[in-house]
Amino acid sequence: MNLINHKFELAARPVGMPKRSDWNYKQESVRNLTDGELLVRIFYISLDPAMRGWMNDSKSYVPPVGIGETMRALALGRVIASKNANFAVGDHVYGPLGVQELAITNGAAIIKVDPRVAPLPLYLSVLGMPGMTAYFALLDIGRPQSGQTVVVSGAAGAVGSVVGQIAKIKGCRAVGIAGGAKKCQYILKELGFDAAIDYRAEPVAKALQQHCSGGIDVYFDNVGGDILDAALTQLARGARVVICGAISQYNNTTPIKGPSNYLSLLVNRASMTGFLVSDYASRFAEAAREMAGWMAQGKLKSREDIVEGLETFPETLLKLFTGENFGKLILKLPES
Amino acid sequence: MNLINHKFELAARPVGMPKRSDWNYKQESVRNLTDGELLVRIFYISLDPAMRGWMNDSKSYVPPVGIGETMRALALGRVIASKNANFAVGDHVYGPLGVQELAITNGAAIIKVDPRVAPLPLYLSVLGMPGMTAYFALLDIGRPQSGQTVVVSGAAGAVGSVVGQIAKIKGCRAVGIAGGAKKCQYILKELGFDAAIDYRAEPVAKALQQHCSGGIDVYFDNVGGDILDAALTQLARGARVVICGAISQYNNTTPIKGPSNYLSLLVNRASMTGFLVSDYASRFAEAAREMAGWMAQGKLKSREDIVEGLETFPETLLKLFTGENFGKLILKLPES
Repeated sequence: MNLINHKFELAARPVGMPKRSDWNYKQESVRNLTDGELLVRIFYISLDPAMRGWMNDSKSYVPPVGIGETMRALALGRVIASKNANFAVGDHVYGPLGVQELAITNGAAIIKVDPRVAPLPLYLSVLGMPGMTAYFALLDIGRPQSGQTVVVSGAAGAVGSVVGQIAKIKGCRAVGIAGGAKKCQYILKELGFDAAIDYRAEPVAKALQQHCSGGIDVYFDNVGGDILDAALTQLARGARVVICGAISQYNNTTPIKGPSNYLSLLVNRASMTGFLVSDYASRFAEAAREMAGWMAQGKLKSREDIVEGLETFPETLLKLFTGENFGKLILKLPES
Repeated sequence: MNLINHKFELAARPVGMPKRSDWNYKQESVRNLTDGELLVRIFYISLDPAMRGWMNDSKSYVPPVGIGETMRALALGRVIASKNANFAVGDHVYGPLGVQELAITNGAAIIKVDPRVAPLPLYLSVLGMPGMTAYFALLDIGRPQSGQTVVVSGAAGAVGSVVGQIAKIKGCRAVGIAGGAKKCQYILKELGFDAAIDYRAEPVAKALQQHCSGGIDVYFDNVGGDILDAALTQLARGARVVICGAISQYNNTTPIKGPSNYLSLLVNRASMTGFLVSDYASRFAEAAREMAGWMAQGKLKSREDIVEGLETFPETLLKLFTGENFGKLILKLPES
């Protein structure tokens, strides 16, 4: 077996928006497996906002990707060789396999998925990390009660779209903030949100005042910046703010903009709590079962934005930060 | 009875630091009581950071003081006339009586205090609003566990000094941030804090790193601004940040500085929660009993900074914002 792998290695720490020269596109021969290892041919690579943070050389919840290391990414593929008793050739697997065609792993943090239960891309979206994030962050940290108002930013995105739909399932009013008329129409008409705010076309604070006259009970933040500040002005008493991400700030070359209106937490006896999905790993199966049930009942919809070709990686990733993606952004590789 | 009252009425909305011309000092004859009212001669007026917020014309947890209205303040005095069956002449009472010598009230939010149980000024400090704030915000929101590290800003102040002492009583390590060597010595030597950081003399982030090598489990914030940001960089996983005040920001003429490092909440799965003492009114008696017990055992000490004379009010209030006060700031009026 003489296999050739192509991959992206981190070449530089980006300043601001990442660019192609921040990675090296490399070709290499695949080495032989040692005991305990398996070789995976990757079909789908998940592109996520968190990847920008992994490129920085700063302390965070995971170590940064080192210069010269394969760019970290969650990906899904099929085992094509195995010296690990837990994985057989032909198994479909999901985990931190990296931005490459062929990955060798010792099986740590790799889970099996079943293509007969759901189409493979769903394991990167609603049944994968974004769906788990939406489920646990909303239900465990946001704790929405029936009849309350839930506002989510990045509402047409992989996490936000699920947050709004679960809010509806739980009997809440769901208000989404998204960029552009197309995304706003999508969350209103396709996903059943009660209101949509186009942050590119209208002042968010005023629109929130109009759509949340009783105040915001749960604000689920994926974006940070001015939109977080606008939401803070409209909190209801006892509101829960879930800090899930801050995509507007990830490419800053100046210090992050903190929420000027944070004293609204005091006035409204509200809380702001950070969330990391990995803390809930032991409950992923439970959540996936419930969400698969909602999908079967037509209550939960998913949309993927699938781009073909490993080589497009640097430019495709940027779609997340310019807001060009529409649904869960996934890179598709040929299945052979 | 022909009594003369002197008082401060709000004359203007301050821009930045309040100044004497933002109030009118007025003299008036005291009118007759109607049914249900009582007349109180005020002995002690509590000066608190929150008073600055009450002077702004903005939505908050209480309505602003109106232009031409008596300046709002908590105060303590003795009933000298009563047409209210719940209060008799000679009773000592405490409540929102205002910055004046003689107050007429219908008894709403007025409670009786017993001068035989504790010296009267203590009812404005450790047994009053600042003490209640420290007790409930630390124990209910901060939820410190024995062995954890509690950091408090404004540590020599009326709230912060009690926070650190209760943290010690609960078996925690107490680290205080205060301005100046005198205050730092006080919290270390008199109050038994484990460490003191003088924010005027040393970089707070670096000092926190040194004194909290295992991270901050509870950060109790009275000041906001750069000190809040410094504390956020040192949070332990699962930390609780209590937002009790933001005295560094109350006189801003530019927008409030939000905490740039708020994404530390995400990295550390931490929470930041606002607190208002009035929500705990039904449990004040319980807390006062426990704190009086700690005082009797010598575990809880209190310090008051008592300034004489109603007319000094505008300048005395400013001591809070320049950090000149040392202990609970109280204005003392003659008892006749």
